[in-house]
Amino acid sequence: MTKPTNSRRQFLKSAAIGGAFAGTFSLPVWSDKHKTDFANDLPEWMKKPGEGFSNYGQPSPYEQQVIRWISANPDAPGNGVSWTPLHDLQGTITPNGLHFERHHNGVPQIDPTQHLLIIDGLVERSVSFDVVSLMRYPMISRCCFIECGGNSNSGWRSSPIQSKVGYAHGLISNAEWTGIPLKVLLQEAGIKTEAKWVIAEGADASALNISIPLEKLLDDAILALYQNGERLRPENGYPMRLVLPGWEGILNVKWLRQLRLTNEPAMSRDETSQYTELQPDGKARQFTFIMEAKSLITSPSLGMVLPDNPGIYQINGLAWSGRGKITRVEISADGGNAWADAKLHGPILDRAFTRFSLPWHWQGEYSTLQSRATDETGYVQPTREALVKNRGQHGFFHYNAIVSWEITEQGDINHVYGI
Amino acid sequence: MTKPTNSRRQFLKSAAIGGAFAGTFSLPVWSDKHKTDFANDLPEWMKKPGEGFSNYGQPSPYEQQVIRWISANPDAPGNGVSWTPLHDLQGTITPNGLHFERHHNGVPQIDPTQHLLIIDGLVERSVSFDVVSLMRYPMISRCCFIECGGNSNSGWRSSPIQSKVGYAHGLISNAEWTGIPLKVLLQEAGIKTEAKWVIAEGADASALNISIPLEKLLDDAILALYQNGERLRPENGYPMRLVLPGWEGILNVKWLRQLRLTNEPAMSRDETSQYTELQPDGKARQFTFIMEAKSLITSPSLGMVLPDNPGIYQINGLAWSGRGKITRVEISADGGNAWADAKLHGPILDRAFTRFSLPWHWQGEYSTLQSRATDETGYVQPTREALVKNRGQHGFFHYNAIVSWEITEQGDINHVYGI
Repeated sequence: MTKPTNSRRQFLKSAAIGGAFAGTFSLPVWSDKHKTDFANDLPEWMKKPGEGFSNYGQPSPYEQQVIRWISANPDAPGNGVSWTPLHDLQGTITPNGLHFERHHNGVPQIDPTQHLLIIDGLVERSVSFDVVSLMRYPMISRCCFIECGGNSNSGWRSSPIQSKVGYAHGLISNAEWTGIPLKVLLQEAGIKTEAKWVIAEGADASALNISIPLEKLLDDAILALYQNGERLRPENGYPMRLVLPGWEGILNVKWLRQLRLTNEPAMSRDETSQYTELQPDGKARQFTFIMEAKSLITSPSLGMVLPDNPGIYQINGLAWSGRGKITRVEISADGGNAWADAKLHGPILDRAFTRFSLPWHWQGEYSTLQSRATDETGYVQPTREALVKNRGQHGFFHYNAIVSWEITEQGDINHVYGI
Repeated sequence: MTKPTNSRRQFLKSAAIGGAFAGTFSLPVWSDKHKTDFANDLPEWMKKPGEGFSNYGQPSPYEQQVIRWISANPDAPGNGVSWTPLHDLQGTITPNGLHFERHHNGVPQIDPTQHLLIIDGLVERSVSFDVVSLMRYPMISRCCFIECGGNSNSGWRSSPIQSKVGYAHGLISNAEWTGIPLKVLLQEAGIKTEAKWVIAEGADASALNISIPLEKLLDDAILALYQNGERLRPENGYPMRLVLPGWEGILNVKWLRQLRLTNEPAMSRDETSQYTELQPDGKARQFTFIMEAKSLITSPSLGMVLPDNPGIYQINGLAWSGRGKITRVEISADGGNAWADAKLHGPILDRAFTRFSLPWHWQGEYSTLQSRATDETGYVQPTREALVKNRGQHGFFHYNAIVSWEITEQGDINHVYGI
């Protein structure tokens, strides 16, 4: 559980993080409330028949605070985002009602009988598919995350924002997508040898279009029709969307209506003025498709309080990488001096959420909790300092630095910038 | 892909099932509709801004037919079931809104701040846990199915019912459950050596109670608080339920309020007059906890039609076993004479849904489609004939025989009893 680092003092700290629960786990937080009036009588819901069955279930009325928080442009209400409340969730699946949203001009209400996917451009024959015909093709399923290229962009600000973890980093969700390998559909059209790019367009009012290297579509791209078992939700592209495992959200085009094969990118608005990154040298990074490895401690995190001082707390969170599987997550309680390996919860899937955890015996001291992910390519999640040094002060996209939670001696939690 | 059986004719049939798509996959079902008036104009939803963001999303209005079908007692409306529409789903996750229901006296609307889990009986000290204290314990996640012991019981009838597959076999769902290993909580109470059974009681109006061997609770049982990432749905036990991977649904007690450790089972109503099985010799099987291996072809299945004759069709479906992983699913198109191996879609998880598929080139002949699952213990899903011979004509629970779909020469699909 522990990984000694470069000093005796750091080793002891590391042991305190990782080694406190080698034996039996016991927490003194149970009670004997059942011996008091609290439970002497049967609760009211045991005294009368409950509610009936429902055709389609909904969350408990006691969970109405678990929502996507909406940040939309008041002058253009269909342009904005809604955030997955990662701080309220556990496990790895994002339920469909809470999958993050990013729209440029709202959610089209598409009649699936009137929708076509057209493949044209540098093909042997242009072809169209309606939903009924697509259902005839072989399907595959894959759990993977989709992350907006602008997720966590508040991290570029000069001072740390004090938002709950999902409302700063929740432009990411993880679902089981089922659909047709794109390669199969492209082969129906016949790919001309000079084709190198594909311009994908959605059937929303913004007619969002973006260029994707053909190579990715022939590799692992899916035309998704199902999300966590049921048909796509409208805000996730009903009746069909692209899923490009590990690549930035905007490329996973929703309400997909056209794939036009070309020999060069379209240089559209969303790949020139947007979703590009100005660098310290004044040049812009463009076509930065892959979302690099990242992790977050979701509990404890901002908005929570540690009630017992000292006390035992389960640190847990999420890690992912657009390049493959997560192989390691380390946790520090002292702002990055000493690190201990967290447990990774399986199955560990390629380009999907991996939940990690580590019990922590907090002694009441001022602490700074951090997590650091490593993926199977050996890439290690950078510190904020290293990310800013490399990419400059004026970034907006692809922020994946280590996130730091300050624990005060009172057990309050704040977002801070670590070293 | 093919498995020769005992005759030349059967081998050829088998090859026809499994060998038709060794090379490039191509289906002539695309169109050139995009060149016609159908798509000459932009659809109306591209001409105006779409709908705004939502705090909690819902399915498309065009998918309102995808529901849990309710079979409840009109005289006691909280007693009955609702079925997962397996015929409308793909992949392996059952979305929370469509997880099957089985209630004895309706769904209690529990205020989580007023709910306690009590562990008492043969323990060192009786203890209670409220939701806040449970959140302090270490959690694990696990995808597994929960299947009602009475699922598919229409199979015991003398003639095959003509219901869609989900409405005959959909008292099963598969979700990612997250919660606390039961072992951890039992250890907080301290288990006395004479304890052998645990009587679990739910906080519904029926105060459903049932006996569970302590050994299972110390093995892999989970006190689940989360279902597919979010807190449990009310109809799935909010705020907490038992999950006993692979064991019949009734033991996965919802709205769990008490675990009483004892040295013998309670012999309650739901383990004597119900959820027991009368055998041909007049004796009853009791405490038949484990759900044996089973599979179903969900597509094509009853209610669908094969439009092209001849045509290429993707056979796909679900397999699972309460004893471990699925290792093989075979498909027959001739009522069980010749079999071909289906592809199993990974990750293949212990006691969870496994999706299988096999392309089939239907030549237009009368056919009987069947699937047959094998699990890692070597157990093979039985024919209906073998199951009835072994268990008698008057069964009600634990029906797991091979399901047969008759394909007529017109492409209609009926449920039939195979040999």
